[in-house]
Parts: sequence; C-alpha cells; structure tokens
Amino acid sequence: MPSEFEFIERMKSRYSLKLIGDDCAVLPKDDETDTLITSDLLVQDIDFRLDWARPDQIGHKALAVSLSDVAAMGGTAKWGMISLGIPEKLWETGFADEFYEGWHRLAAKFGVQMIGGDLSRTPDKVVIDSIVLGEVPQGKAILRSGAKIGDGIYVTGSLGAAAGGLHSLENTLSIAALEEKQLQPVPELSSANMLQDIGFTTSLIDLSDGLSSDLDHICSASGVGATLYTESIPVDPHLLEHFPSGMCFDMALNGGEDLRLLFTSPSQETIKGAIRIGEVTANTGLIELLDDENRRTRVEPRGFRHF
Amino acid sequence: MPSEFEFIERMKSRYSLKLIGDDCAVLPKDDETDTLITSDLLVQDIDFRLDWARPDQIGHKALAVSLSDVAAMGGTAKWGMISLGIPEKLWETGFADEFYEGWHRLAAKFGVQMIGGDLSRTPDKVVIDSIVLGEVPQGKAILRSGAKIGDGIYVTGSLGAAAGGLHSLENTLSIAALEEKQLQPVPELSSANMLQDIGFTTSLIDLSDGLSSDLDHICSASGVGATLYTESIPVDPHLLEHFPSGMCFDMALNGGEDLRLLFTSPSQETIKGAIRIGEVTANTGLIELLDDENRRTRVEPRGFRHF
Repeated sequence: MPSEFEFIERMKSRYSLKLIGDDCAVLPKDDETDTLITSDLLVQDIDFRLDWARPDQIGHKALAVSLSDVAAMGGTAKWGMISLGIPEKLWETGFADEFYEGWHRLAAKFGVQMIGGDLSRTPDKVVIDSIVLGEVPQGKAILRSGAKIGDGIYVTGSLGAAAGGLHSLENTLSIAALEEKQLQPVPELSSANMLQDIGFTTSLIDLSDGLSSDLDHICSASGVGATLYTESIPVDPHLLEHFPSGMCFDMALNGGEDLRLLFTSPSQETIKGAIRIGEVTANTGLIELLDDENRRTRVEPRGFRHF
Repeated sequence: MPSEFEFIERMKSRYSLKLIGDDCAVLPKDDETDTLITSDLLVQDIDFRLDWARPDQIGHKALAVSLSDVAAMGGTAKWGMISLGIPEKLWETGFADEFYEGWHRLAAKFGVQMIGGDLSRTPDKVVIDSIVLGEVPQGKAILRSGAKIGDGIYVTGSLGAAAGGLHSLENTLSIAALEEKQLQPVPELSSANMLQDIGFTTSLIDLSDGLSSDLDHICSASGVGATLYTESIPVDPHLLEHFPSGMCFDMALNGGEDLRLLFTSPSQETIKGAIRIGEVTANTGLIELLDDENRRTRVEPRGFRHF
C-alpha cells in the first residue's frame, strides 16, 4: 500500500498537477498579490476526542492548523470556511455554537473573517474541514523546495509540548501546560511575517507532522539532506519537568502539532526569534543527528502519518 | 432546536458575517474579476452509499455539487480541492484512486484543475469535503437576494430525476436512467454562462435541496413570495414512465440534487434553454401553486435538510 505521501506524488504525476504538494496552493490574484489556500480535515477519534477537548477548543484547533499552513508559506491569513459534519444528538447540545465561538475567538486575533462553509449531519462522528485563504506578495510564497546545501536549519521555538500534551491526555496525567499546547496550539503568523520581511528564507514548512517528518518533506522537495545538531534541538522545558530526557527528545524530534515554523536560510547572522538546529547537506534524502562528540545517527521520519 | 438554516442566520448575525449565505462566497480578486469559493461536505450513509455508487461516481458527484454552486452564482469554475477521509480498510482497496479518477474526469470537461486538499484516516466512514473556486466578472455574481416582484421564475430543465433515482436505489428498482441522474448529476455551468451573458437575471440558485426549498431560499433572501404554475413545472419524462403522476410531481417539487438552475428574470421574452414556471409576488415568504383551474395551494419547503 502506498503511504499518503506516495499517493499524493502519484496523483501529481498522473494528472500533471503542478499546484499541489506544499502547505498551501498558490494562485495568482492581481499584479501585486498571490492567493494562498489550504484545507485540513479533522476527524473525531483520529485528530481529536470529545472527552479531551471542549467544542470551543476543537474550533480553535481546526482554525489554528490551517492558519499555520498559511504561516508556512510566509503568508497572511484573511478568510476562513468550515465544513462541519455532526451527528444529530450533538446538534441538539449546542456543540456547534461553542465550536464556532472557539473558531471566531482565534480568528479575531488574526483578523480572519468567516466567509462560508457547509453544515451536514453525520451518522456518529464529528468531522471538520477547515479551509483558510491568505495572501502573500506576488512570487514571494516560501515553498518547501528551495533549501540549498549549506543553508542553516531553524525552528521558531521549543518542540514536543503538543506531543507531551497528547501523552498527558492519553495517560490522564493532567499536565495542564502541555495539554493546553495540544488542544489550543497557536499558529505563528507573526514569525511568518518576520521571515517574509527578512527575505532570506529558502524553504519553509510548519511542524504539524513532527520535526523528523517535516524536515524530510523539505529535503524531498528540495533534493537535499540535513544534519541536525542533537544538543541544539530545543526540547520544551515543560516536558523536561515531567518525563525522562530521552522521551522528551523523542517527542521533540518526532512529535507533531507544535505548529512551530521550520525553515532554511543562508544567513550567517543570528535570526531573531529562531534557533539554529542544523544545516542542509548534499546527502540527498539522508537526515542525520550529529552530537557534541561528533557521533552521527540516521534519523527516520517518524512523525504522524495517516496511512 | 434550530434548523440548519436558522443556525446559519444566527451565526451571520452574531459575528456580523456579510459574506456567507449564498451558494458561494464572493471575494475581490482584481479590477475585473471576483473570486467565488464554495465547500460541500459529503458523508457516507448520509449523502452517498458505497453499495449504491462506485468510487469514481462518488468522486464525480463530489465535484459536481460544488461546480453547481459556482454555476449558481453565474460563474466559471477554475480550481478544485478535495479533503478526503477514508477508513484504513478502504485505503487498501484502491478506493482513493478510483475516486480521484471520477473527480478528474468531470474536472477535465470543465477545465477545472486540482490544486490541493487533504487526506485523512477515519474510524469507519468515508467523508469528503469538496472545495471549488471560480471566477465571475467583478460585481456580476448573481445572488439569491435580487428577485423582484413581477419577475418570472425559471428552471433550466426537467425536475425530479435525481429524486427518482434515489427512490429506485432505495427500492432496488434498477431504473438506470434515473439512477444515473442521482449518482452522476451534471452541473449546468454552460447555462450559468448563458445567464451571465443575457444579463437580466435578478436571482439565481441551484436546485440541490429541491424546488420548494430552494425557491424558499430565494424568497427569504429577496423578501418576496412566489406563485408556481402547477402545469408548467417540468416533471422529468423518465419519472412518468415509472411512477404515478402525483408521486412524480412531488419528486419534481421537493426532490433535491437535480443541479438544475432556478432563477428569476424580468424578461418578457422567451429565454432559450429555460422554462418559465411561475412569478415573483409581493406575498413575502408565501409560495403558492396555481393550477389551470385557478386553485391556489400553499407550498411548504419540503426539500432536503440535515437538521
């Protein structure tokens, strides 16, 4: 069976699809601007659980993951749509009101306006498709495919908290600070603006599947490899308070949904608000960890995948 | 409990949403063009059944209903996205390949290009969110809200076949001509272009919920009423071969999914490709049937609704 990523590559080839495969599709708007568009499907008991998250938190997260896709192109979010499917018994509880309340609360923070969507009954599970449109200066969308050998690899903050939150929920550990990061992640649109302003960024993705997988997406799209500096990977400090360091490192490397930005840049100067964690190499498809004692370990993409 | 339509009205009011409530949202693109965007959620065992429809037919229909929303604004379809959720056991059957094949076959007929989407695992049911973007000359999107008292009410073809097809499937009657209309309806984008060219159209919607409901949407949005001429309603001729005339008339009046266009126009001349079935009245919110013997019957919106 193909993985979901192999399947998408096969579709791209079979139907000559040139506009798919990045965090958003880029469409021409006018002489100055391109339009960005993304959709994210969230399914009950796969992507969220009703016994873990309040309806407003689910609304928040549905929007957050799509806003993060716009951030991952260096764009500004403008409009959103929600296709919501819910079972009849949940319709009667006011779930939809609270869901949209959470959506709108986050939308207001980023100046995003709801422009439409759909509402449907489902047999038994909640399903949500979150669609966000954004804008970017013409030709300035930052793709996954531009990483160059020798570029530095950067992340915009600490990693693993969302995975730690998931672990806390799964094991009823009630670690509020981590669960908050899992249930209500904040998309980094201001970091995206900053990167757009700096102008040196060669590739960009958001950390939704996990560092090992998302860096692999950049390497595949750019035809390069990567070396990560083991000691530079910023493990979330809340994690270290609760779990053994090896487990924390694994969550930082492979845990998804932090919604940090991962990017490459040839800049030799320190980039404010970003942490340099490695460099782009010529070893196409190979990602390695390099520790302070000069030992190299191969990294397999172990982040989240549906198939 | 609110109906889905009441719920949407409440959201519009609560969050001051000005861009929702028509078949598509209309966004400014450039000096000459507006962008249209729509999303439609289709859920297994609510909107389709795997024992009735092949995967390629489901792909066809998912695109068709969204293309029809673009037609319902007088627009031209350009781009599409699919968020597809499927259970693991179906992923292994090649369902997704056939689904996208059906999508692309219809897309090719209308010059629509796939630009993205999402792929997700679900616990047990297939869910599809179909997103289509289109274009319309600036300010020329034809809304539901422009119907004027005295306008003629028109449909672009016969009605009830899709409902007849559903009845055939539900009762294993194997009436192929009707089932085809249910499983692979054809959106009327060329009629939409024609209406855009004529330029007199005051309101427009596609018949997805059913004539009685969709005309009610026009009447609500326009603040008018309507009289339908009983004998002018074009009952699909295939229906009449198989079912009693009263049942056929009910399917034509209340059955959804035909994807015909319903519009109003002040034109006194015959409109090519359209059938005049009534006129817009001042009786706000009231829809009546008027027969050849001058008897009037109130029509309640009895088309499809989720809640």
